[in-house]
Amino acid sequence: MKKYMEMTRQERQAEYAAVKAAYDAQKAMGLQLNMARGKPGKEQLKLVMEMGTILQTEEDYIDDGLDSRNYGTVDGMPAARRLFADILGCRPEQCFVGGNASLQLMFDTISKAYVNGLLHSEKPWSRLEKVKWICPVPGYDRHFKVTENFGFEMISVPMTATGPDMDMVEELIRDPAVKGMWNVPKYSNPTGIVYSDETIQRLASMKPAAPDFMLIWDNAYCIHEFACEFRPFGDILSLCEKYGNADMIYEYASTSKITFPGAGVSVMATSEANLAYLNPLINIRIISYDKINQMRHVKYFHDADGIRAHMRRHAEILRPKFETVLSVFERELGGTGIAEWTHPRGGYFISLNTMDDCARRVYKMAKSIGVALTEAGATFPYGCDPRDRNLRIAPSYPAAEELENATHVVCQCIRFVSAETLLSRM
Amino acid sequence: MKKYMEMTRQERQAEYAAVKAAYDAQKAMGLQLNMARGKPGKEQLKLVMEMGTILQTEEDYIDDGLDSRNYGTVDGMPAARRLFADILGCRPEQCFVGGNASLQLMFDTISKAYVNGLLHSEKPWSRLEKVKWICPVPGYDRHFKVTENFGFEMISVPMTATGPDMDMVEELIRDPAVKGMWNVPKYSNPTGIVYSDETIQRLASMKPAAPDFMLIWDNAYCIHEFACEFRPFGDILSLCEKYGNADMIYEYASTSKITFPGAGVSVMATSEANLAYLNPLINIRIISYDKINQMRHVKYFHDADGIRAHMRRHAEILRPKFETVLSVFERELGGTGIAEWTHPRGGYFISLNTMDDCARRVYKMAKSIGVALTEAGATFPYGCDPRDRNLRIAPSYPAAEELENATHVVCQCIRFVSAETLLSRM
Repeated sequence: MKKYMEMTRQERQAEYAAVKAAYDAQKAMGLQLNMARGKPGKEQLKLVMEMGTILQTEEDYIDDGLDSRNYGTVDGMPAARRLFADILGCRPEQCFVGGNASLQLMFDTISKAYVNGLLHSEKPWSRLEKVKWICPVPGYDRHFKVTENFGFEMISVPMTATGPDMDMVEELIRDPAVKGMWNVPKYSNPTGIVYSDETIQRLASMKPAAPDFMLIWDNAYCIHEFACEFRPFGDILSLCEKYGNADMIYEYASTSKITFPGAGVSVMATSEANLAYLNPLINIRIISYDKINQMRHVKYFHDADGIRAHMRRHAEILRPKFETVLSVFERELGGTGIAEWTHPRGGYFISLNTMDDCARRVYKMAKSIGVALTEAGATFPYGCDPRDRNLRIAPSYPAAEELENATHVVCQCIRFVSAETLLSRM
Repeated sequence: MKKYMEMTRQERQAEYAAVKAAYDAQKAMGLQLNMARGKPGKEQLKLVMEMGTILQTEEDYIDDGLDSRNYGTVDGMPAARRLFADILGCRPEQCFVGGNASLQLMFDTISKAYVNGLLHSEKPWSRLEKVKWICPVPGYDRHFKVTENFGFEMISVPMTATGPDMDMVEELIRDPAVKGMWNVPKYSNPTGIVYSDETIQRLASMKPAAPDFMLIWDNAYCIHEFACEFRPFGDILSLCEKYGNADMIYEYASTSKITFPGAGVSVMATSEANLAYLNPLINIRIISYDKINQMRHVKYFHDADGIRAHMRRHAEILRPKFETVLSVFERELGGTGIAEWTHPRGGYFISLNTMDDCARRVYKMAKSIGVALTEAGATFPYGCDPRDRNLRIAPSYPAAEELENATHVVCQCIRFVSAETLLSRM
């Protein structure tokens, strides 16, 4: 397709008329498609239905003499801690296994910092004038909502092909008010990029002015390849330890996108010193998380190899969905110069940039035809994308047959808004 | 047995020598018994083993078109909200159904007050000079730990046979810094008393100076009778509403002592206005709680009648345990005047008062012989019982055959410490 910028006014008007007609036709179809969230599809859920009934006898509920059915053991069943250590490459003693959401473990750790202070805090963060937080952009909207909730000042740092702009990060951490940083290091949300070894080393070895700096390592997609073989990823805990930063790192993961999104198991991996400090604080809030569900996961998967084998089945489901979206993008937007998008090999998202000042209108227009996207701006702190161009596309939930049409609608909307924008500038 | 206070010095010395010899003999037995926590026994857990495998088909996971396996629906599955509304006597729209612990729902609501403020707050509580909190004593240690965690000043109010001293409460709430109050209104922890209708009405109708006062209603033992028929308990939400206090009340309950303590389902019931305010804040922390476990409970019990029938089976297990403890108390301490204890008809605890200044030593002595009790002082704010006399006894966990011996040890310790104390005063 011809580059929009190179079209004559007449050509643009013809294009505009064509996409407007297509838009009107789509609208009449009354679609109801959702590409807003990284929600696994029904086919993925079906894969693990046997897990629901895997605990049969009383012995199945017991591990190391601990009864998962009763109160106690706030840091999780030993077998579950071993399973996650196996996945993350750290030691079981560094794993705190929680409930069905890693987001709540992240929220709660930051909440402890706010109310009580962390191990190396001089005082609770609620008593500080200002707390600042580094946010790679585009990034995960729910992360930004958490730090916004606590009133932290969020500082955007651009994502590059190798991870966040490390020169900026290294400059920012010289400010003692900068207390932490969000990271989704592998198949980042939404760009799908994987942090390079150099980026990871620079992060692990940095020396923030704040003694209680939190390097949050949301390893949400640690084994979520769909377009390549499993890519091993070094243990961030031992790397930080090597540089004297053992207590700076807080890693998170969960089975939300492995088993059931509503009923998975989550983990926080951090130094044993941090856990010794945090466990009694966590224990004020909860006696223990659901340890039976931890045992279900252990009995079903046994070890990291069991989970990785399962994830290859997820890949078989997800790969064609991503391929569909990417091929429609290529066919309908390729060569137009009005959009660029990522080609992830794992994770749950494609990040798409429109021309400046178009994303919000595309989002609204798609919504009006019945295709829900993540709200434009959501991938930036405070929901504000300064160039109004980033859209997060989540291909996982719609059925394969709906996906082509949904993506077609998105492309139509992008062409419509782009043509309109360029015409208005002439 | 003769009253200790009426014994001659010689009689006391003989008693002291006798209990000391018994103590030494006990110590040699190397017991390991636990009456520290309200932990259900294995027999109770066995009753609900079928719940673990009750969800079989895909349809079992779905309710009102919502798939419990996937993300979403932060306030819980509609069927679970109906089930809890049926138990508490309120409306499903007032129920927020959460994860495996009501304690975390209480903690989180107070945390929202601290970080964000509640619906009627002028500002977040973390920005206030001082927050005060009413604590009926003796009370539940985990409640007190929560309010201590947020740095609130806890004010003790004595429990009477009909509930907390309401004259004191009504005086205290005139202070706008007094922001809330703990309550376990039915089979209170640890006294086992049930708030009278008059107490409940005075609480529901009070007019605290603080516009964002939280009347926390931890209805943990709402259907936990073991020595009488189910005792209906009015819906506190509608009573508060009647007095214009709809947004003051936060009620909590869970199935921790109905199904699996480590893997039950919890509920917060409050006004729809409060939920409309809180849901988006809760949603920042978690996308949804484990809805599959909610469906397990719904499919297993169907309704409140199903749960009440189940609780009669619990009663059959718990009643003999409480009877054993009470009969040993009567046999070994009756008439001595050195201890008094409650006779609960439901709940999980017996509250025992020793002579002043004896509880901590009894606790330590029992521990040294291998019988774990709740730490002395725990039933008061800051772990400090001003008269050092209250002990919480939890008969539920030990097997029936161990219980007689464990209680005997406690009695021995009370007699030992009492005799020693009285001798030292002569």
